[in-house]
Amino acid sequence: MKFEIIKEDKKTKARLGVIKTQRGLVFTPAFFPVATQATVKTLSPLDLLNSGVQGLLCNAYHLFLRPGIKIIKEAGGLHKFMDWHRLIITDSGGYQIFSLSPFKEIQDLGVKFQSHLDGTTHFLTPEKIIQIQIDLDSDILLPLDECCSFPITKEYANLALERTLRWAEASKEEFLKYGLKDKALMGIVQGSFFQDLRKKAVDYLEEIGFWGLAIGGLSVGEPQDLRYNILRFLSEILPKKKLRYVMGIGKPAELLDAIELGYDLFDCIIPTRFGRTGTCFTHKGKLVLRNAEFKRDTLPPDPECDCYVCRNFTRSYIRHLFNSSEILGMRLLSYHNVYFFNELLRKARQAIKENNFINFKKEFLKNYAD
Amino acid sequence: MKFEIIKEDKKTKARLGVIKTQRGLVFTPAFFPVATQATVKTLSPLDLLNSGVQGLLCNAYHLFLRPGIKIIKEAGGLHKFMDWHRLIITDSGGYQIFSLSPFKEIQDLGVKFQSHLDGTTHFLTPEKIIQIQIDLDSDILLPLDECCSFPITKEYANLALERTLRWAEASKEEFLKYGLKDKALMGIVQGSFFQDLRKKAVDYLEEIGFWGLAIGGLSVGEPQDLRYNILRFLSEILPKKKLRYVMGIGKPAELLDAIELGYDLFDCIIPTRFGRTGTCFTHKGKLVLRNAEFKRDTLPPDPECDCYVCRNFTRSYIRHLFNSSEILGMRLLSYHNVYFFNELLRKARQAIKENNFINFKKEFLKNYAD
Repeated sequence: MKFEIIKEDKKTKARLGVIKTQRGLVFTPAFFPVATQATVKTLSPLDLLNSGVQGLLCNAYHLFLRPGIKIIKEAGGLHKFMDWHRLIITDSGGYQIFSLSPFKEIQDLGVKFQSHLDGTTHFLTPEKIIQIQIDLDSDILLPLDECCSFPITKEYANLALERTLRWAEASKEEFLKYGLKDKALMGIVQGSFFQDLRKKAVDYLEEIGFWGLAIGGLSVGEPQDLRYNILRFLSEILPKKKLRYVMGIGKPAELLDAIELGYDLFDCIIPTRFGRTGTCFTHKGKLVLRNAEFKRDTLPPDPECDCYVCRNFTRSYIRHLFNSSEILGMRLLSYHNVYFFNELLRKARQAIKENNFINFKKEFLKNYAD
Repeated sequence: MKFEIIKEDKKTKARLGVIKTQRGLVFTPAFFPVATQATVKTLSPLDLLNSGVQGLLCNAYHLFLRPGIKIIKEAGGLHKFMDWHRLIITDSGGYQIFSLSPFKEIQDLGVKFQSHLDGTTHFLTPEKIIQIQIDLDSDILLPLDECCSFPITKEYANLALERTLRWAEASKEEFLKYGLKDKALMGIVQGSFFQDLRKKAVDYLEEIGFWGLAIGGLSVGEPQDLRYNILRFLSEILPKKKLRYVMGIGKPAELLDAIELGYDLFDCIIPTRFGRTGTCFTHKGKLVLRNAEFKRDTLPPDPECDCYVCRNFTRSYIRHLFNSSEILGMRLLSYHNVYFFNELLRKARQAIKENNFINFKKEFLKNYAD
């Protein structure tokens, strides 16, 4: 697996890149929808291809608990299991262990935790987490990490970071044992909102040596400017030639900010979660289509969008579906929102190609009211 | 709108026909999925076309209450509203008024009832029900009728029938006022499970004169043989050249029985409702894919089916989706089940063409355990 930078924008740090994989090419900056439980909620793999999705983020923790790794391995791996044959990144599930488990005990060698599904106790080590992701046949793997909540003391953030870095080292060692050329392991940069801790993370991870770097520990309840400041700070110290993946963001404006700072990859539940609750992304901002104002609105969800949903359905109809608790409403808006995010990223790539990113962003945000 | 019989099976009463409409041709015998609230639950119009659906049954009562007829009329009619451009039959909603309303008062001129959604009181006459269906721009309309529950006294069944027949007459008169050549009005045969009442219904409806005849009052909790006996009895006295529509059936074996008796059209919630609860129709019978036995089953839902779902997903994956409360599971099984029903009817038509219906049915049922 290789990441290459094709073109750098002349006026910003934005860059156009490509991940060359055995599953085909992924052009960056790219946005990956979240398929936590081996499905992007409400959407079929065909929908994802039709809406321009290049890759997905699945979750090792969730799949380990249900249906269990053996079942997926026997099925021929995660791609075959879920009928998705392009790139899959698997999140280690560190975040989920820390946020979902009713009980957890962090030890130096790993994490003991209770399943949020049935209360059974498990002990996962960084090595085991790597094995799980290899058994899933994931393409890009992420090590076990400890994602701190916000706010947190610097002392604890440092403690968690040091553990995360030791786990990163153990993960790298484990990953190397398999000698897999078609897969890549990324490092996860933690350190909460402390710049020196973030720098320590980058330096240490670079010393270990990872294929790319993922920025974790964001979107944990912090104000947006704090998040932006950390991303800006990191953008200065991250290795230039490696893939930079910001985990768990974001809204359109945030994605454009991060692209401008030179980040390449993003995942977020926003398009699908908002879609399931009746919120539609448009070139003019978000619309809550459940609202009464759309009762007789025969415009497409987003008149500037050319997706299947916008070409064939009206706001009035989608509102009716939501009001009638019809699943098709969730499905249509999830489809449109995923398409919308993919189109935004596609246009961003085009703008970088034309050294026009800053104008593109300005133009987009001028019309877009968040 | 015209119904023509293309071919009669030589060994049974089964017949191959075609409904010629401004929306295209519908080959019969045909099965229409139910789109009560202007959507076949979980499926898109594109899914319906891809799974061979020729037409849908929508519900005037539901759409009258929500989103309201004006909204659909303003949207350009029901076809445009829901992006379904082939045939639509609208049920009058008589059945729903009688089964869903918390309060109803049947009067000779119509029905006073409370909305099951918000408790508002409405009075619908047979004339108004026709106007509603014309405003919806439905293709095949059904008059207001009173559908009796089971069991019911003969006295009440007769009372309800006489009211239904008067309403049928009023509906026909109202329908004629519009002089619409592209639409058709069917009569609904009621009379519960009393043969003489059913005969009285057919005779009276024939005297009024309807484009086709729908058999109502079935699937209301009666034993299956009682239903079959009424269908067999009616098959002898219904006009030969008119479309015969059995409302609200049924399972595969029942559909084949009814086709053998010379019925042409069917609608039922079974493929979608079963699909949403994890039950898959296969050539060997129903499978409850939620069950633990399918945990590691890497076969397609139905190995003899060539639909999108069976070509790309396993029982194990679909079970995982249901166990994880993922909507995609409901969607995939609804799609497959609708496809399965359409294929069954398509094969039945082919068998009639080849004077082979009785063998086809025997062969199908030999493998199919209900």
